[in-house]
This record gives sequence, C-alpha cells and structure tokens, in this order.
Amino acid sequence: MENGSKKKWNFNGNQDLNASAISVKGVFNKLTATLNKEDKRPVVRLCRADPTDFFKTTDDASHAVAASVQSFNFNSYSPSGGLPDARRAVADYVSSDLPYKLSPENIFLTSGCTEAINITLTVLARSGANILLPRPGYPQYQSRAAFCRLEVRYFDLLPEKGWEVDLDSIVSLADENTVAMVLINPSNPCGNVFSYQHLQKVAETARKLGIFVISDEVYGHITFGSKPFVAMGVFATIVPVITLGSLSKRWVAPGWRLGWIGTCDPNGFLHDTEIVTNIKNYLDISCSAATIVQAALPQILEKTTDDYYSKNLNILRETANTFYERCKDIPCLTCPNKPEGTMMVMVKINFSQLEDITDDVDFCTKLAKEESVILLPGVTVGLKNWLRITFAVDRCDLEEGVKRIKAFGLRHSKKL
Amino acid sequence: MENGSKKKWNFNGNQDLNASAISVKGVFNKLTATLNKEDKRPVVRLCRADPTDFFKTTDDASHAVAASVQSFNFNSYSPSGGLPDARRAVADYVSSDLPYKLSPENIFLTSGCTEAINITLTVLARSGANILLPRPGYPQYQSRAAFCRLEVRYFDLLPEKGWEVDLDSIVSLADENTVAMVLINPSNPCGNVFSYQHLQKVAETARKLGIFVISDEVYGHITFGSKPFVAMGVFATIVPVITLGSLSKRWVAPGWRLGWIGTCDPNGFLHDTEIVTNIKNYLDISCSAATIVQAALPQILEKTTDDYYSKNLNILRETANTFYERCKDIPCLTCPNKPEGTMMVMVKINFSQLEDITDDVDFCTKLAKEESVILLPGVTVGLKNWLRITFAVDRCDLEEGVKRIKAFGLRHSKKL
Repeated sequence: MENGSKKKWNFNGNQDLNASAISVKGVFNKLTATLNKEDKRPVVRLCRADPTDFFKTTDDASHAVAASVQSFNFNSYSPSGGLPDARRAVADYVSSDLPYKLSPENIFLTSGCTEAINITLTVLARSGANILLPRPGYPQYQSRAAFCRLEVRYFDLLPEKGWEVDLDSIVSLADENTVAMVLINPSNPCGNVFSYQHLQKVAETARKLGIFVISDEVYGHITFGSKPFVAMGVFATIVPVITLGSLSKRWVAPGWRLGWIGTCDPNGFLHDTEIVTNIKNYLDISCSAATIVQAALPQILEKTTDDYYSKNLNILRETANTFYERCKDIPCLTCPNKPEGTMMVMVKINFSQLEDITDDVDFCTKLAKEESVILLPGVTVGLKNWLRITFAVDRCDLEEGVKRIKAFGLRHSKKL
Repeated sequence: MENGSKKKWNFNGNQDLNASAISVKGVFNKLTATLNKEDKRPVVRLCRADPTDFFKTTDDASHAVAASVQSFNFNSYSPSGGLPDARRAVADYVSSDLPYKLSPENIFLTSGCTEAINITLTVLARSGANILLPRPGYPQYQSRAAFCRLEVRYFDLLPEKGWEVDLDSIVSLADENTVAMVLINPSNPCGNVFSYQHLQKVAETARKLGIFVISDEVYGHITFGSKPFVAMGVFATIVPVITLGSLSKRWVAPGWRLGWIGTCDPNGFLHDTEIVTNIKNYLDISCSAATIVQAALPQILEKTTDDYYSKNLNILRETANTFYERCKDIPCLTCPNKPEGTMMVMVKINFSQLEDITDDVDFCTKLAKEESVILLPGVTVGLKNWLRITFAVDRCDLEEGVKRIKAFGLRHSKKL
C-alpha cells in the first residue's frame, strides 16, 4: 500500500466554523484549562447560566417525562413542528401573556432554544441581509449569524440608562437589507428587565424600519425586581414578533432540550412573507426535540405551581442582592445596575484601580489561575473590559467567590 | 397607526430552503393530503422507516431513560460532544466491529442521525467543494448539501449487480474539489448489504481519489440475508471513515433523538486536516442530544440482549420474504433483489403493463387516492419511476397493502 502523506487528501475545513471560537462553552473550556491544580480549594464557577447548578426541576415534571418514556407511546419520530398537544400547550402558555390567543400552528418545538435561534437566523439568511443584535448580548446569535453569512450590526444597551436599548443607534444602523432585530428580555447578560413603555418604543422603531423583532424570552418571567415581565408579543399589532423560549431556565431542565419558536403575528405578515413556510421547510431537515419530552410538555406547563416559581425567584432575588451589595466593596469592580431578572449581571472592571491586568480576558485568566474562580470575560458577550457574572449559585459559593475576587483585586491593585 | 401593507417589510425567505421540498416527511405529508376520506378501509403506510410502527424498544432501555430522568442528575447541559461515559459506551459498541479500538474522543453524540448528517456535511462545505452521493439514496444528504451549498454529484447503485456501487462512475465523477463520498450500509433505500470485498474496493477507490468515506450505518447489524454487516471502519487504514449511527433503528427509539458521529481514522488524517476540530467547533453552536437519554446509553447498549436483536431480525426476514414473493404476482412491479437488510426495498414500475399512469409520483398519488396505500415515489430517493416500499409493518397490513397495489395495477393495466 502506498504511503498516505497528508497532502494527498482533498478535504479540509469549513472556515466559517472559526466563528464558534466565541461560544460561552469554548471560553469556559479555555478558562477551565488554566486552573491551578495545586489549589486545593473548590473551584467557584460564576460563569455559566445552568440553573441545575443551583435549582432543581419539579417532581411533577420528572414524573411526566418518566411516564411518557414508560408508556412506550412516544418513541417514534415526531411531526416536524412537534406533537400537536405539546404545541397547543405552549401556545396556551405563551398566550397567557398576550392580549390575543396563539394557535398550535403558531408554535414550533425545537431542540432547545439554541436550535430555535439557529432556525430563526437561518430562515433570514438571504444574500446581503443583515440583522441587528444587542451589545452586550448572547454569543450564539453572533456565531450562528457568522456561520450562515448573515451580516451582524450591533446596537448598544446603555448601562447608564438601566441597559435600555439605544434606539437612535438602531435607526442609524438599519438599511433596506436589515431583516430583523434581536432583543433578549429579561436581558442576558445584563440582568435588567425592559419596561412596557420601552418595549413599545422598540416595537415602534422596528415598525418604522420595516424589520421584525426576534424576542428571546428564554428567561421569561424570571424577574424579581420592580419591573414585571412583559412579552414582546404584546406589541405584535405594531410589529411582527418571533418569540423564542424553552424549558431550560424557568423549569430548570436545560438537559431535556426543549425549546420553541412562537410567531406572534396577528396581521399575518410572517405568513405572507413566507417566513413561516421557511421555518417549516427548515424543520423538515433539522433535528427535533425528543418526542418523549414533547409528550410531557402539557403536564409540565399545567402542573408547575406558582409556589415553585416564587420560591426560585425569592432565592434569585436574595443572591442578586447579596452580589450587588458585596460588589460595592470591591474597588476594581462597578456594577452599574442591580439585577432585576435572569441569573446574571454585567460588571465593569475599573482599570484605574489595577496594575498588571491588561484586559477582561487577562483578568479572568489570572483570576482562574490564582483564585480558582471562573467568570466570563465581557468580550465574549460583546463588551470588552466588563465581566459577566452569574449569581444563580449557592450563597456560600457566591460569598466565597466574591471574597476571592476581592482578594485578587487587592493583590493586583495599583500601588499609589 | 399607519396601515401595514405587505411591501413595507424588508424580510423574506432564504431561497436555499426550497431544497427541503424533497424530504421524505414533505412527500409523505403531500400524499396523506390526497387520501380519499370516503374510503373507510384503514390506510396502509408502506412509506416510512419508523420501526416503532411495528417493533417495540426494550423494557431495559425504557427503564434506563426513566431512571436517568428520576435521578435528577442529568438535567443540565451536556458537554458539546456528549457525556464521557456515553461516548465511551458508543466507542466500545462501534469498536466491537473493528480490528482496532476507538476512544471516547472519537465519538460525538448528536441529536439523532439527522444531526450527525447535518454536522458532517456542514464541516465539509467549503467554497467549491463537492460530495459524491449514492443514487438511490437518502434525501437528507441532498437537502442538507443544497442548504450548505455543497455541490452534489451522484454515483449509481446498480440493481443488476445487487445494488453494488458503480465504482467506475465514482472515478469519473471525482475531481480535486471532491471531499468525500457517502455510503449507506445496510442500504437505505435498496435493502441490500455490501460485502466485505466490495467495501474494500470502495475504500481503495476513495483512497486513490483522496476523498474520505462517510459511512451511514444507521441500519448497522439489521441484516437477515446471506451477508453479514461489515463496518466500513474495518478499512480505515486504507481510507479515513466517518461512521454515523443512532439508537433509532436497532433499538427502536427514533423519538429519543440520539445519534453519533464516529471518526474511524487510525492514521489521524481527519485530525490533521482539522475535520475533527471543525466538528468540535460546530458542536459548540449546535443542538445536542438530551442529557437524560445520553446518560442511559451505557445501560441501553450493555443490556440489550442478542435475543432481542434476533427476534426483530427474524420478523424482518419473514416480512421481507413475504413482500418479495407477493411482489412476483404483481405484473406492473419488479423487485430485482430480495432485501437482505434495513426495513425497505426498491421496486421498479413496469410502465409497459400500465396505461394512464405517467410516472412514479402519479402512481403513488393515484394509489393513495384509490386504495389508501402510501408508498414513497422513487424520485424522492433519486430513482424516478421506481418505488421505495417499507416491509417493516405488521404482516396483515403488508398482505393487505400488496393486495391493494395488485388490484390498482390490474385496474390500470394496459388493455391488450
């Protein structure tokens, strides 16, 4: 047999895939690799938004999935958009926040919210199109857009205005090739909740520009401050809205991989412009959520009690407050707004207080190495020299993490 | 508020998504829509390859998934490639057919084999690249390739040679931009099983051309004729092989959405050419298999008995034979080769025997309308004027279906 030298093979990589270097998972893996194995203290991870680190899904939800497995009735392929009963259950759930009612045909079940994002961006990715993303935001949008060659333009969320959208920047960024804007509410990574009035202004701005709104509500109802959760679909008579959601956060089951796309569109524009047809076509060649989980969905949504939701929110309110208060004692960090929703918050690094730390990545790398604490560098979510910090962790872990960050900051503080 | 006329919206569809019109699901939906509701006989579906229509997964497998749900230990996000124990279990399972051993790092768990196909084609889709697909084949390859702008070139499977690969056509189709060829073994849709000798020739041909082999073994070990299943990975010292598999067929659990990609590559070419890096990058931004199913995988693979496999194969052997024998009595159909594997077979329409039937789609449409029998038109799988027929159905249903097809053929037979 001839010798197989490397150059004889035709194949090599898809270059677009380098985009995924900015995934949270990728950064997390890199930081984990820098941990000092000599440090015998437990690692404090304040970087992930995996609620199972801290909360537990309900017994009812677990029983519902186990029962659907043991019935042997849901082992077959599901229809492309999902089981009709499961679609109806999600339609009813999403509709409870709206002044009109969605039908099961407005809901498409997906393999987690990740796939809901992937499908939504893919159906928009015609040649030359661009999409407006929030900065800071959730890197999956950027990664997937790069991958399907959808140009990305960023509008700012303004820390000095409680992380509200810079509406002027939206107007100046959009052109005739802009197809949509993304809003994440409650906001990952900022931890704010958008008000009714502000969402209405966003809707009106989008309408003027002729673009629709992708409203990522994966943290829907995870609010514990002064502002209630308002679904963007409330404004769907102003502008068509595609709502994304999942079981991952509120029901603490990200490993079940059940998400959804909802078309909030009483005027039928998404239907008329074939966005809905494209979603259906793409679902035919995509992976779908496990049928056994879909089958459990009606029971999960029906049986989860308000008590369960409130208990988790009370805990989040407490850890959010703890973090916000403790952060005031760390000179090298500034948290501009107390978090009112989600499980994370953005914190600014004060370089005027520090020496020998060059940027947010350097901060996180040295912190992981010296203190066995993992935070997410802001650049991962679009805001260089900030940090994304998760407070959805055990309170003792949070206190310990903050203590170590403080020690780290003092050790690296500028000698005056 | 101003009137929202359609033309004011910037968004419209991704044109590549029309490719999915050729999905089995899409054709199935269309044929279902043509059924005559006045016909009170039960519909006979000989078009799908959903084994749950006919077989049942094991109690052990169901218990394993239910137990992983009820443990509350597997509700979190899984690592990108899958849980280490699950990857190890699949590595051991795939290795049992190979002369060398795969490590867990050679296995990437996916949301069903559909996602395994999607990932594999995506990582190859550099500008100008082409891929060789079998004709007839499985339409997901064509749909996904069209979607990611990977040019498709077809090589023939030869009915007169027991559906073996036309090796000459491979050589004439390939050029310096050809990155890989796909082989489905056991063969969907032909129902044949490739011999050791033929697979070796395929491997040697691919090596000469500098392309690697994607071996779709989703029907691996589902053989009931004279030829045993031989894994393509056996020839991985000749040519790098990417093996695709899933729980869907052999374990009768397509709704659990658990598939895998295996890199059979003892010489490390897939690693050196960054194919493996690209798979990892793409997994970071893709949906993954449900963690609760991944966690059950070691038990599912370990506990399923040879008795279970044999029992299902004996049933398939019997229904395959029944179909093959009955088909001889239908003048308008020819089944060139008795199926020896999978759950389906290709059958040729003899138009010399028929009048007023124009092609395979016309055949299937009229058959659905007049006899409430659903078959898949051959054009869906790349072979116009043939039919793909599934025999993995209840024997009575199969006999009834064949009877109706025969009556249909006689009714439309050419008057001599």
